[in-house]
Amino acid sequence: MCVRIEIITTGDELMSGLTQDSNFSWSGDVLTSRGFTVEFHTTVGDYRDDISSALVVASERADAVIVSGGLGPTPDDLTAEVAAEFSGVPLELNMRAVSSIEERLSKRGRVLTDINRKQAFLPRGSRVLVNHWGTAPGFSIEKGGAVFYFLPGVPKEFRAMMDEYVLPELERKRTGRKKVRSMLIKTFGLPESEVAVRLEGIEREGIRLGYRAHFPEVHLRVTASGDTGEEAGKLIEGFAGDVRSRLGSYVFSTEGETMEEAAGMLLRRHGMTLAAAESCTGGLIAHRITNVPGSSDYFLEGVISYSNESKEKILGVPRDMLIEYGAVSAPVVEAMASGVRRLSDADIGVGVSGIAGPGGGTPEKPVGTVFIGMDSDKGGVRSEKFLFHGTREEIKLVTSSHALSFIMQIFLNKV
Amino acid sequence: MCVRIEIITTGDELMSGLTQDSNFSWSGDVLTSRGFTVEFHTTVGDYRDDISSALVVASERADAVIVSGGLGPTPDDLTAEVAAEFSGVPLELNMRAVSSIEERLSKRGRVLTDINRKQAFLPRGSRVLVNHWGTAPGFSIEKGGAVFYFLPGVPKEFRAMMDEYVLPELERKRTGRKKVRSMLIKTFGLPESEVAVRLEGIEREGIRLGYRAHFPEVHLRVTASGDTGEEAGKLIEGFAGDVRSRLGSYVFSTEGETMEEAAGMLLRRHGMTLAAAESCTGGLIAHRITNVPGSSDYFLEGVISYSNESKEKILGVPRDMLIEYGAVSAPVVEAMASGVRRLSDADIGVGVSGIAGPGGGTPEKPVGTVFIGMDSDKGGVRSEKFLFHGTREEIKLVTSSHALSFIMQIFLNKV
Repeated sequence: MCVRIEIITTGDELMSGLTQDSNFSWSGDVLTSRGFTVEFHTTVGDYRDDISSALVVASERADAVIVSGGLGPTPDDLTAEVAAEFSGVPLELNMRAVSSIEERLSKRGRVLTDINRKQAFLPRGSRVLVNHWGTAPGFSIEKGGAVFYFLPGVPKEFRAMMDEYVLPELERKRTGRKKVRSMLIKTFGLPESEVAVRLEGIEREGIRLGYRAHFPEVHLRVTASGDTGEEAGKLIEGFAGDVRSRLGSYVFSTEGETMEEAAGMLLRRHGMTLAAAESCTGGLIAHRITNVPGSSDYFLEGVISYSNESKEKILGVPRDMLIEYGAVSAPVVEAMASGVRRLSDADIGVGVSGIAGPGGGTPEKPVGTVFIGMDSDKGGVRSEKFLFHGTREEIKLVTSSHALSFIMQIFLNKV
Repeated sequence: MCVRIEIITTGDELMSGLTQDSNFSWSGDVLTSRGFTVEFHTTVGDYRDDISSALVVASERADAVIVSGGLGPTPDDLTAEVAAEFSGVPLELNMRAVSSIEERLSKRGRVLTDINRKQAFLPRGSRVLVNHWGTAPGFSIEKGGAVFYFLPGVPKEFRAMMDEYVLPELERKRTGRKKVRSMLIKTFGLPESEVAVRLEGIEREGIRLGYRAHFPEVHLRVTASGDTGEEAGKLIEGFAGDVRSRLGSYVFSTEGETMEEAAGMLLRRHGMTLAAAESCTGGLIAHRITNVPGSSDYFLEGVISYSNESKEKILGVPRDMLIEYGAVSAPVVEAMASGVRRLSDADIGVGVSGIAGPGGGTPEKPVGTVFIGMDSDKGGVRSEKFLFHGTREEIKLVTSSHALSFIMQIFLNKV
């Protein structure tokens, strides 16, 4: 049976464009990758009548309806109330929900207040979906042949509860269909149009390929379907092999890992340590690297030398060099890389300097001019010049990605 | 008259989460800032029946319906066809549309092909909305008391045609209407439920208050309406004053600025400089501060001392202290703050150490234990201990926010 799915997201912050609707796009991605089709998506603000209208419409055209948001403790959290009215039942205190909230609060040394208690009032007869990731419980009701899942709007909680409750139930609902496998291939260093050119003609029966720009990366969502899981798996492995042979080292991940995770795995596998001296990225390289659990095993030290004095004093970049070439130059980033490597006794030193803008550009060195330097036994001391376009934050981000990519290339014998 | 607005966006790339629905979020923002409320938003893929269902539903609940996408020349562009069927009229070649397409193409030295010509078939009796920004003409029809605007999905064209046709017509449609002012109040340091408790009973006529959890901050969107802009402005100023008096220095922004911008403005206004020594935040404090253009005026230097050696060698934290108290301790973060302040000759030094997890916790110092230290002439040397919950990235983020808040409090005479 084909399940007709509708997603309803609620919240004034969505209607007013304040917040991107990430619960919807995440759900669309996950459901598509599992071979489902989302037919309808409705967004409404925190208005009783509008939420109600959305539920009525969805019950008439969908088999499974996923509703996000409005389960919190504040007065504009109306979803449970509207759901009860929609079902023709009263709200009542759900003891299972109370105890799950109490348990959650007690772990943080807090007690149940009336406000938290409000979250435990659910439509009579509804099934509680225990929220292990936050205080607002979810619930599920059936009405008019459709099943409704009401989940909290906080993305982390929404996603965890989709994984825990909704996806397994949807899988059980469909029968006698193809098995689906999916893979996310992450690339960095080529624009989307160039990726598309390199992959021209790669399409084949049973494979669906979707592009997703995820600045500054380009991701490919590959979905394979076959009569058995094994068949779908073989199909996708073969396809991924072809993608790799066409895109080479621009592919940095096929198992969901981030760029900093991929770089960290290489450092760990080779038993090497890293230190970073950052100017224009302002700490972003170190921040990304240290987002990875256990990164203290290979990341020793970072220096953010925003001023020339600190480049000189801490990193030992010669004053004459700063005067002659300027802080944004090949010799200076190489000296920064060597300086931070020496300072921390790391195997690899990386140094970055550039003009992130919006101010500070000159005709010779416009905004977006960036140098990345590297010092390692294997690759020696070297640097590369870039010219990036975009906002200050985009330039910081793309620079940090190039630095990570540079580090990975040491291990791929490219530097 | 109050105009009930619905936005319908179409396209498979939206349903599969591959593309963010920027036409919707842009429209929501523009319409809200002009005092309109978008009541409903529906997204459907490129399926005839689904688009049709969305039009029928919208005609029953809205006065003005804005439809984006599906007007191009390819076989999955179905919107005009579905709109004709929905109106009960045939598609016919619209000569005004033909000439506008021809004009557009001739400017680029191209001639009308059958494929372009397809785009000039519009529902009989519809009003052409000439597209000066691309080839696909828009059109407008009325049905069941509602007016429908069909616009191309390319964001640049969609936005230009909203500005040119839709917004002026919507402005004319509302009469004797209230003027609207809106404000975003950002708070940090209280959970959403505590903010709600403190604001209990603050509601008043003409004011609408919406909460938005934006981890680790809580934002309040306040919208005021009055007979004149001045009246709405006074209403909102008075309300914001009440919010401030109830929430005190937990409010850090009322003009959209981020926490790092707010901290930066205070530093700049007082002519003071800052340096940061980070352990568990791994560069995030510096990254946030340097996201602000011009931050090099007040941010001098950062040191990410992930190892004890670098705490000792660069920041001058005594080895005995590290051994006696451990790296995650009050004396050490105070010594880090003083060390980085001395190193960079800054007015304020901040030092952070903690256990971001998931590993590294002990019974005495579980994951989430964080110390933040500060050294400034005004506040002297001091530190605070925290126990945070969450993932590694959440602990890094909330720690960096507390550090920024700590810096701001120096200027608010709280430290």
